[in-house]
Amino acid sequence: METRVLIVMGSRSDLPVVQGCMDQLDEFGVGYEVRILSAHRTPEAVIELSKQAKNRGIEVIIAAAGGAAHLAGVIASSTPLPVIGIPVQTSALGGMDSLLSTVQMPSGVPVATVAIGKAGPKNAAILACQMMGLKDEQLQNKIIAFKEQQAKKVLDDSYVE
Amino acid sequence: METRVLIVMGSRSDLPVVQGCMDQLDEFGVGYEVRILSAHRTPEAVIELSKQAKNRGIEVIIAAAGGAAHLAGVIASSTPLPVIGIPVQTSALGGMDSLLSTVQMPSGVPVATVAIGKAGPKNAAILACQMMGLKDEQLQNKIIAFKEQQAKKVLDDSYVE
Amino acid sequence: METRVLIVMGSRSDLPVVQGCMDQLDEFGVGYEVRILSAHRTPEAVIELSKQAKNRGIEVIIAAAGGAAHLAGVIASSTPLPVIGIPVQTSALGGMDSLLSTVQMPSGVPVATVAIGKAGPKNAAILACQMMGLKDEQLQNKIIAFKEQQAKKVLDDSYVE
Amino acid sequence: METRVLIVMGSRSDLPVVQGCMDQLDEFGVGYEVRILSAHRTPEAVIELSKQAKNRGIEVIIAAAGGAAHLAGVIASSTPLPVIGIPVQTSALGGMDSLLSTVQMPSGVPVATVAIGKAGPKNAAILACQMMGLKDEQLQNKIIAFKEQQAKKVLDDSYVE
Amino acid sequence: METRVLIVMGSRSDLPVVQGCMDQLDEFGVGYEVRILSAHRTPEAVIELSKQAKNRGIEVIIAAAGGAAHLAGVIASSTPLPVIGIPVQTSALGGMDSLLSTVQMPSGVPVATVAIGKAGPKNAAILACQMMGLKDEQLQNKIIAFKEQQAKKVLDDSYVE
Amino acid sequence: METRVLIVMGSRSDLPVVQGCMDQLDEFGVGYEVRILSAHRTPEAVIELSKQAKNRGIEVIIAAAGGAAHLAGVIASSTPLPVIGIPVQTSALGGMDSLLSTVQMPSGVPVATVAIGKAGPKNAAILACQMMGLKDEQLQNKIIAFKEQQAKKVLDDSYVE
Amino acid sequence: METRVLIVMGSRSDLPVVQGCMDQLDEFGVGYEVRILSAHRTPEAVIELSKQAKNRGIEVIIAAAGGAAHLAGVIASSTPLPVIGIPVQTSALGGMDSLLSTVQMPSGVPVATVAIGKAGPKNAAILACQMMGLKDEQLQNKIIAFKEQQAKKVLDDSYVE
Amino acid sequence: METRVLIVMGSRSDLPVVQGCMDQLDEFGVGYEVRILSAHRTPEAVIELSKQAKNRGIEVIIAAAGGAAHLAGVIASSTPLPVIGIPVQTSALGGMDSLLSTVQMPSGVPVATVAIGKAGPKNAAILACQMMGLKDEQLQNKIIAFKEQQAKKVLDDSYVE
Repeated sequence: METRVLIVMGSRSDLPVVQGCMDQLDEFGVGYEVRILSAHRTPEAVIELSKQAKNRGIEVIIAAAGGAAHLAGVIASSTPLPVIGIPVQTSALGGMDSLLSTVQMPSGVPVATVAIGKAGPKNAAILACQMMGLKDEQLQNKIIAFKEQQAKKVLDDSYVE
Repeated sequence: METRVLIVMGSRSDLPVVQGCMDQLDEFGVGYEVRILSAHRTPEAVIELSKQAKNRGIEVIIAAAGGAAHLAGVIASSTPLPVIGIPVQTSALGGMDSLLSTVQMPSGVPVATVAIGKAGPKNAAILACQMMGLKDEQLQNKIIAFKEQQAKKVLDDSYVE
Repeated sequence: METRVLIVMGSRSDLPVVQGCMDQLDEFGVGYEVRILSAHRTPEAVIELSKQAKNRGIEVIIAAAGGAAHLAGVIASSTPLPVIGIPVQTSALGGMDSLLSTVQMPSGVPVATVAIGKAGPKNAAILACQMMGLKDEQLQNKIIAFKEQQAKKVLDDSYVE
Repeated sequence: METRVLIVMGSRSDLPVVQGCMDQLDEFGVGYEVRILSAHRTPEAVIELSKQAKNRGIEVIIAAAGGAAHLAGVIASSTPLPVIGIPVQTSALGGMDSLLSTVQMPSGVPVATVAIGKAGPKNAAILACQMMGLKDEQLQNKIIAFKEQQAKKVLDDSYVE
Repeated sequence: METRVLIVMGSRSDLPVVQGCMDQLDEFGVGYEVRILSAHRTPEAVIELSKQAKNRGIEVIIAAAGGAAHLAGVIASSTPLPVIGIPVQTSALGGMDSLLSTVQMPSGVPVATVAIGKAGPKNAAILACQMMGLKDEQLQNKIIAFKEQQAKKVLDDSYVE
Repeated sequence: METRVLIVMGSRSDLPVVQGCMDQLDEFGVGYEVRILSAHRTPEAVIELSKQAKNRGIEVIIAAAGGAAHLAGVIASSTPLPVIGIPVQTSALGGMDSLLSTVQMPSGVPVATVAIGKAGPKNAAILACQMMGLKDEQLQNKIIAFKEQQAKKVLDDSYVE
Repeated sequence: METRVLIVMGSRSDLPVVQGCMDQLDEFGVGYEVRILSAHRTPEAVIELSKQAKNRGIEVIIAAAGGAAHLAGVIASSTPLPVIGIPVQTSALGGMDSLLSTVQMPSGVPVATVAIGKAGPKNAAILACQMMGLKDEQLQNKIIAFKEQQAKKVLDDSYVE
Repeated sequence: METRVLIVMGSRSDLPVVQGCMDQLDEFGVGYEVRILSAHRTPEAVIELSKQAKNRGIEVIIAAAGGAAHLAGVIASSTPLPVIGIPVQTSALGGMDSLLSTVQMPSGVPVATVAIGKAGPKNAAILACQMMGLKDEQLQNKIIAFKEQQAKKVLDDSYVE
């Protein structure tokens, strides 16, 4: 399967967080590559990976990091591709540090930030597919079907006895 | 010019905030439509607009709102297109309310959130173009050029006497 | 028993939170209906439910949601009935996200917000009954009795040996 | 005109904040009484006023206060009527102090809290009328008309050239 | 033993929190009375208790409460005695709500606020004794001895092998 | 007039903040000394001043500081007298930094913290007098009169036309 | 004068903020170079500059940035020299975003963070000199003298009439 | 081994927090002394220790404290040596109190603040070695090797199957 999404996380301990993202991409049948690289320990490798992504056929990059979460920002600095940032929950500040250092990017270098917590990684996958759906009608149809199914599931389970 | 981006804001008072977004889309030569609609005063009109967007050829929707900022979330609920949320700065809480109600979306309905403050609207435009650039090489090239120019400007102005 | 209160929650996982609300309505002998519907996954069903509420004889709507908690706001947009919002505690931010996205509603569309945490759901029930008590003297008398009993219990248990 | 709503504020300096509330009640043709009383400087007067409210024909009490905003809570302790709390914006903490001390009420004593900032006072008036609308069809119809007009105004002013 | 300090807490569940306060008063040999009374469920009993305190020989009042923590403020409104507030930690917001609603008192009605968490209750006792020490040299000497002993303990245990 | 209260501030720029404290002590006819000393620039002078305070006849020490506000804490470490802390509002964080570094004192060393903002300094003066009132009936009577007058002023100005 | 300190800021608009840092280095007679470079617009130039710093004789690097303030972190990733981070105050969140994204660095890559606001830049200069003072006795003596003079100034200006 | 770093913590309960700092210094082969001393219980011992540090050959002081964390600030007031502050995580406020009272130091007295949480203590050790590396080429080379090894470890472990 073609690799269309690049998932980068700042530390191997973020792997369980990112799992929901991988599962969702699997569900949509979208190929991805997962890398563990640190914006602070291996900045040049992160930049190199980001610069090559487009030519390797990557369409969207998803980055998950916590604390002073610079990973998504450093990636976004080095690629014309859209970059999605997942702020990882932290034990001291709940992830408010991760959120602010991911979302408050300066003019010229956006990071598409999703939620702290469980919803974020899954939503990062969906958002990536919505982006790729702009040119891939089959994928967009999967999203439409996913949203319908999701709504149906809610409606079917709507009553409480 | 073809309308590719739909910009929605919650109140006419958000227009100056959104201006930076429009200017950036103008600079990239991307057509857009601007609407003022409230998730709370006209929810059905927002949903209707969101549902029709794809068929009207809209590719990305950008929503700006402040306080209990539900606009982007309501739009995202009703379209398979990617939705970008701009959290508008507020006088009481600085926009922390806008940020949290935009970014903390539940599983299944992502909003690609950008920064509170001046950088947000401009970055929303760039992010929209990065998404559309996935299928529009010319636009992607403009982004590459924009990033190079931006870097050049920083480097040219890097020294302080 | 006549259904006078409509309780809506964003996810089945909020059911234990909402239980305190149901128990209190049971104690006051007030009939209610409980629905699980998501402002983001099934916005039209939420709006439809809200629009029909008044004609179905519903008097007050109570909505519980967490994170970017738009449920109460979307309901409030679609009914002339008073709407009470319960901000559900969240693991990342303690419910500050739920609180701000429930309470910071724009001009014209109030949500009567109660506390995050255990007190909120029970208080939502009491508040609903206080509202209905405006036209239902028997119910108002139950609230008066409840407050007296509550005070008596505190006073009886006031001393620490 | 019959006095149906009691508005209490903690300090005369809150009067401009509360003006939006009075204007909205005027617009709905609902009579009200405005009092300035402090939960901390005149607690017994506040309790006395609250205890008498129901027998004087008051239906809803609205309280506006800032900082350690105990006014709404003290009132709610002493009446079976629904109490609406307006958290007044503060210069040091933006009103986060007012919000938390108004909304985080303990089990048994709800305060229906509205937004910090400009929207709060107006919404307090609307919420009060929604409550009274439960028994006053004419007032409920005014709210329905208000919401329709509000929506119409948004829709009429929705396009940006 | 003469009762010199009145300790009031908002709920019996605060008893373990307040224990550290009682232990410290025991250690200083200061008599106290402990009462559980709610500012919201029994406001008049709180005010009555506060008004009588001085004539009963009480010198300092200590109040512990959480959430919208009005207890210390209501007491302070009704006595010329110094009032110490202990903000009880809360599960949702960590006690930030308790702290702000205890400390942000308006002009004219101070509450001497101590720390959220374990240190607060013990420090409330010490602070009360420091106040009473102004007229009770024996008690002041106990505080001097306590501080010396405390310092000695730190110094004796200062080295880490 | 005898010097009974020692007021220390961290910087001459805090003088306008502290003015409300001095005015209130003047009104109660209580003598005070004002010193500008920094816990960080002149720690030993602060400790020396604190250690001598009791023997000089000082009864209460009031300390005002902003940011990492250690002044009250350092003073409290070096005297058996009660110490009141005024957290000065800061431009960056509104005084949240001052508040937390003043109030969150460790076990054994309380600081009686009052509000950030305008109310704090005045309340620090009142609190000091409440403490000294424990042994000075005349001063306590002034506080009783002050509270009555304050209540009277509120009641006299309670109606809004 | 030899260049020993490298000051980098994220944007020319940060120049007034950084001025206090330069003034203080001037006062200590320490040579510095000032560069404006963005971690997000010119990451490679930042990394290149950081990697060369040591060989160019730079001893300490000071970085000032606001919002998602990654500048200091990116620099710290690419040099064995100590890096000092100045979190620039922001209009929306007061600089809390800058502070958290500067200080919450992951294991292995410290940034020595100083205060948001006016004190930060001056303190960054002093801290840099304290570090260089470890090997430069003359500079350390200047710091000792500076601290003495600072204390003397406080003591000379300590009394308020 | 020569003692070059002085580690001070506010309480013996901080020892597990500080362990990561000691381990890292051990790894770099740098001698240190660990002391438990409280800024509030033994201020003079802290000041005395700080004043003597330089003459005893200490080069850097690291201080760990939580809550109203004045330890690093008090030490910084009494030495020309660079002082590193570790804000200890707290149960009530997550360490936000510790962070703000450590980092928000006034002009003239910097504290080099590192992260709350696990990364902070280790980073404090690295930062201290970076400072000492300015005059100790062997130590600087260890840091360079550490950073390379750290990067290598990340790169070797970068792929996820």
